[in-house]
Amino acid sequence: MLVIGIGAGDPNLLTIQAAQAIATVDAFIVVDKGDGASDLAAARSRILERHATRRPYREVHIADTRRRTDVPYTEAVATWHGDRVVAFERSLIDDVADGECAGLLVWGDPALYDSTLRIIDQVSALGNLTLDVDVIPGISSVQLLAARHRIPLNRIGEPVQITTGRRLADGLPIGVDDVVVMVDANNSFLSVIDQPYEIFWGAYLGTPDELLIAGPLADVADEIVSVRTAARQRKGWMFDIYLLRRTT
Amino acid sequence: MLVIGIGAGDPNLLTIQAAQAIATVDAFIVVDKGDGASDLAAARSRILERHATRRPYREVHIADTRRRTDVPYTEAVATWHGDRVVAFERSLIDDVADGECAGLLVWGDPALYDSTLRIIDQVSALGNLTLDVDVIPGISSVQLLAARHRIPLNRIGEPVQITTGRRLADGLPIGVDDVVVMVDANNSFLSVIDQPYEIFWGAYLGTPDELLIAGPLADVADEIVSVRTAARQRKGWMFDIYLLRRTT
Repeated sequence: MLVIGIGAGDPNLLTIQAAQAIATVDAFIVVDKGDGASDLAAARSRILERHATRRPYREVHIADTRRRTDVPYTEAVATWHGDRVVAFERSLIDDVADGECAGLLVWGDPALYDSTLRIIDQVSALGNLTLDVDVIPGISSVQLLAARHRIPLNRIGEPVQITTGRRLADGLPIGVDDVVVMVDANNSFLSVIDQPYEIFWGAYLGTPDELLIAGPLADVADEIVSVRTAARQRKGWMFDIYLLRRTT
Repeated sequence: MLVIGIGAGDPNLLTIQAAQAIATVDAFIVVDKGDGASDLAAARSRILERHATRRPYREVHIADTRRRTDVPYTEAVATWHGDRVVAFERSLIDDVADGECAGLLVWGDPALYDSTLRIIDQVSALGNLTLDVDVIPGISSVQLLAARHRIPLNRIGEPVQITTGRRLADGLPIGVDDVVVMVDANNSFLSVIDQPYEIFWGAYLGTPDELLIAGPLADVADEIVSVRTAARQRKGWMFDIYLLRRTT
């Protein structure tokens, strides 16, 4: 099984290693998602057309279940993962022959805020299948954010923390002046607007719809909120990320 | 000017975008480093041979100055950067014609613990040159570490912090159970050996000399120290990185 990071948005962010890996896959396992499904599916198809050229391949689709919102977050994620583990195991048993190579394409990098590796570990733990797993890293949106704004993530000798909007809303991390926030549905940067931060924001990074805004947080927060709201309405989904950098 | 992340070690970690960018460069500016110079220079040359094929190109070499060790760290870095800013500006004026494309290849990702972008900002700030800078992200050793150990960097909804050995030796970050340590010359993980952590360690990632060790910190710390010491003696340089994950 190959878990292949395919980078953030732009198909040219694929590594040579990922392109080579794609060419060796017999069956791509695809989880059909809701938000942004059609845009992402089209980009994925273009990647396969370009790189899965060395042998015939097939696609195996797994329906995604929605995460419940009526139970606590951790419990909801656990249930959601559990459903997916069952679906994955079923698909690997039914649709991938012994000795074949199954491929999972992951947007960005499988190591950051992605469940694929955890689900595979849980499938392995069920003990019904012996999986030989290789992971191919991919360019994450964190890196593309920094590249587009032409900034390093960290300052000299200083740490950088990658966290979620949910965590940020609970308070800024202690002892860290550079914080990247992923997975933020609620403009959580507003919760620290009274503090001296610069923000480097990006949405739909690596796609033709890419949006970038940077500046002192208090000056540009309103602009980000309105640009973000309008873009979400226009496209039907939003994927954004930002770096907060304490002004010294 | 193109600042091009070329990934960690393995030339196949280069992105398609980086390969395309390399092919458009007229003059590669190369900083001649000390440690591991010959291994890295050979790998760099192989990347240029493979991708800089679309037009003639030249290499412009800048001698690196050693960081002073007789002054405080921040001051030493500032002086060292200052020297490099002067050398960069000189080289861009003397060796790169107006309208030409200068290229800087950066191991890993220019956004993580690398000074190139800061130095370019300082060159621009001198006001003698107008630079049009594009940054191409690259796979960092952080990502390759996670891929090789087949683990995500963060736990579900939890933050991850990237920091230095120097910082770790001053104490573990608060509220973060997953910490990636880069730039650690002194086995700083030993300073937290009495605490319940797993360690995922890797050295020379992406190269034929790659080393991986993982396990409970208290169980494997001695092994890491001895493997690390022997490897450093054998090769003359060491580049390692690790994730500390608090056991829950």
